[in-house]
Amino acid sequence: MSEDDLPLPRGFLAHTGHAGLRESGDDIALVVSGRPCASAGLFTKSRFAGPSVELSRPRAASGKARAIVVVAKNANVATGDAGRRDAAELGVLAARAGGVDPEEVILASTGVIGRRYPMELLRRHFEGLSPPGDVDAAGFSAGATSVARAIMTTDTVAKTASRGCGAARVVGMAKGVGMIEPHMATMLAFVLTDAEVGAVELAEMWRQAVGATFNCLSVDTDTSTSDTAVVLANGAAGKVEPAAFKMALREVCLDLTLQLARDGEGATKLITVSVASARDRDQATRVAKAVVNSPLVKTAVHGADPNWGRVAMAIGKCEDDIDIDPDKVVIRFGALETYPGDPGAAGLAELRQLMSADHVDIDVELNAGTSSATVYGCDLSEGYVRINADYTT
Amino acid sequence: MSEDDLPLPRGFLAHTGHAGLRESGDDIALVVSGRPCASAGLFTKSRFAGPSVELSRPRAASGKARAIVVVAKNANVATGDAGRRDAAELGVLAARAGGVDPEEVILASTGVIGRRYPMELLRRHFEGLSPPGDVDAAGFSAGATSVARAIMTTDTVAKTASRGCGAARVVGMAKGVGMIEPHMATMLAFVLTDAEVGAVELAEMWRQAVGATFNCLSVDTDTSTSDTAVVLANGAAGKVEPAAFKMALREVCLDLTLQLARDGEGATKLITVSVASARDRDQATRVAKAVVNSPLVKTAVHGADPNWGRVAMAIGKCEDDIDIDPDKVVIRFGALETYPGDPGAAGLAELRQLMSADHVDIDVELNAGTSSATVYGCDLSEGYVRINADYTT
Repeated sequence: MSEDDLPLPRGFLAHTGHAGLRESGDDIALVVSGRPCASAGLFTKSRFAGPSVELSRPRAASGKARAIVVVAKNANVATGDAGRRDAAELGVLAARAGGVDPEEVILASTGVIGRRYPMELLRRHFEGLSPPGDVDAAGFSAGATSVARAIMTTDTVAKTASRGCGAARVVGMAKGVGMIEPHMATMLAFVLTDAEVGAVELAEMWRQAVGATFNCLSVDTDTSTSDTAVVLANGAAGKVEPAAFKMALREVCLDLTLQLARDGEGATKLITVSVASARDRDQATRVAKAVVNSPLVKTAVHGADPNWGRVAMAIGKCEDDIDIDPDKVVIRFGALETYPGDPGAAGLAELRQLMSADHVDIDVELNAGTSSATVYGCDLSEGYVRINADYTT
Repeated sequence: MSEDDLPLPRGFLAHTGHAGLRESGDDIALVVSGRPCASAGLFTKSRFAGPSVELSRPRAASGKARAIVVVAKNANVATGDAGRRDAAELGVLAARAGGVDPEEVILASTGVIGRRYPMELLRRHFEGLSPPGDVDAAGFSAGATSVARAIMTTDTVAKTASRGCGAARVVGMAKGVGMIEPHMATMLAFVLTDAEVGAVELAEMWRQAVGATFNCLSVDTDTSTSDTAVVLANGAAGKVEPAAFKMALREVCLDLTLQLARDGEGATKLITVSVASARDRDQATRVAKAVVNSPLVKTAVHGADPNWGRVAMAIGKCEDDIDIDPDKVVIRFGALETYPGDPGAAGLAELRQLMSADHVDIDVELNAGTSSATVYGCDLSEGYVRINADYTT
């Protein structure tokens, strides 16, 4: 493991390698805990969820998953029964290589839809790997950064985050830059910890952390068929203070979420939209997402165009929220109120300045209740179009 | 009226002129019927609907509106009570210039949000205009093409359509290229006819025509605060066969809808998505819109990238439609089946060819029922970003 490679928590080992799905560089990752784990997972709600998700959902929910295998550059989605068989075989290959039971293996795949895995390449790769012992085996020397890099598709940077929690550590890895919204916004996120946490508590903490972070991220309103967020806790560092652990978990997820937003396809700026004084949290989230997802808001931010009226337009799209009264709404960019207070020429100049920063913060007050929500997104640039008009196939 | 200017139906007169909202060219349109009209209207559902919409909604619904005034380049939205007073005054100015009652005037505005009308310019313009008599007055010599041109914002072409119906004609004008979805997709559409139709029948026919055309158009998922679609029927040509009239009305709306889609901001291609064998029409529309609105589908079409898996992804986004079974779905581009039948290398080459055309037709069968829907959209290009990162303010 190189010095720049973020170490995994105690008791976890990782392998990354090149099976040949991409021309060069690692395209396979396998993470294994040497000890039993508590596990929890949240997955895409897509009707076209792939077999990786289908297989992993019950395994994560069993609370006993302890390994994760990731294939980059091929989603294995919309591949029918053959794709289901391929996924099952991949799980067996990974289990054997990791020295665990197939039912303990989470599968995740990301890449083009509608193509079968190159099974010959996968078989050759995993059959050449010796299971790790209690100490690092030759093939299992990767850290979190290497894992994050191996699972990238059009990501431009590997995304990791880490927090301490007493004697334990919480280490996260994520990838995902497009096809992000509105549930399980990260395509793939894995958090490992050596804290000792029960599976039931872990599942509830995970649900809360993901709900406030990855699920509040929006790059382009498209939802992947493969979104997966899994946490494994192996207890190697012993018990931790629950509140501190919960906070560390959430901070790691938020850190990864912001990295994902900043690396959104073609993104040049991070956008955060906070909606306050909403009727309930659902309304706050709905309004915030309407703003952060609006192509016209995103392009205005991209061009640093002080066209704040587009935020009003986007709020207005929540047409079923009849308790939103335009005469009560307040819109601010940072500390600058743009509605209802008329910003005037000086205000528009200041707004242009604010919108030129690499983080644009939009605050909305609905004055309809006491709930709030914050969501994360990015601007829409020519780069997004270029990446997605060319990427395939 | 120049020879290229599409004539209005009998009994309608139109004025277009330059009040100074844009640097040059007409920015005001006023259409008046010399006879009483039956009227019907459908409007944006935005919570930030502007005073033009607020005033026009009951006037169109009264069934007696007979004039339409349009201001281009200023939406008069999010302008508070001052904006409401300005809109009421505009209605009075237009009524006086057109020789009708203020309650008979539909107002429509399109342009930047959050700025007050330049009332001095509007007053000067309308006060300099003499009401039309029974024959063309000097200021009221415009045809439908001139009206369509005067109301443009970032449109690149004036949009009109015309059909005959017995002795009567149905003539439509529309504008709108961005901020288009999901209700009242056209920002502004006006249809005039000299057919004699009762207001109640007209309202029902209008609801059906708009539902199947403008409301099935999506450019960018953003919904304008000003969307307005109004039909006026003055009866100058006498009674018509109802079924023929209904069809002519719908054809004019569809013609305008396709023109709007093709002229979507930055658009280079028309996309039609038809969903068949859905549980009900709502489901068919929901799935079709998920596909036509997907940025990843739109960019793939832009780049003629045969990445049909993105259509599967977009269908999958309808996560509450649990009766959508991926194993029963069929996806076609034109006549080429891409799922579940594996298109293979030859199929992908053919698909690339199909996607290079200026009209890309995507057909989906859900095999979950007997309903269907067709929606209209366009590709997503760097041009959309350029237009909207720069447009203001």
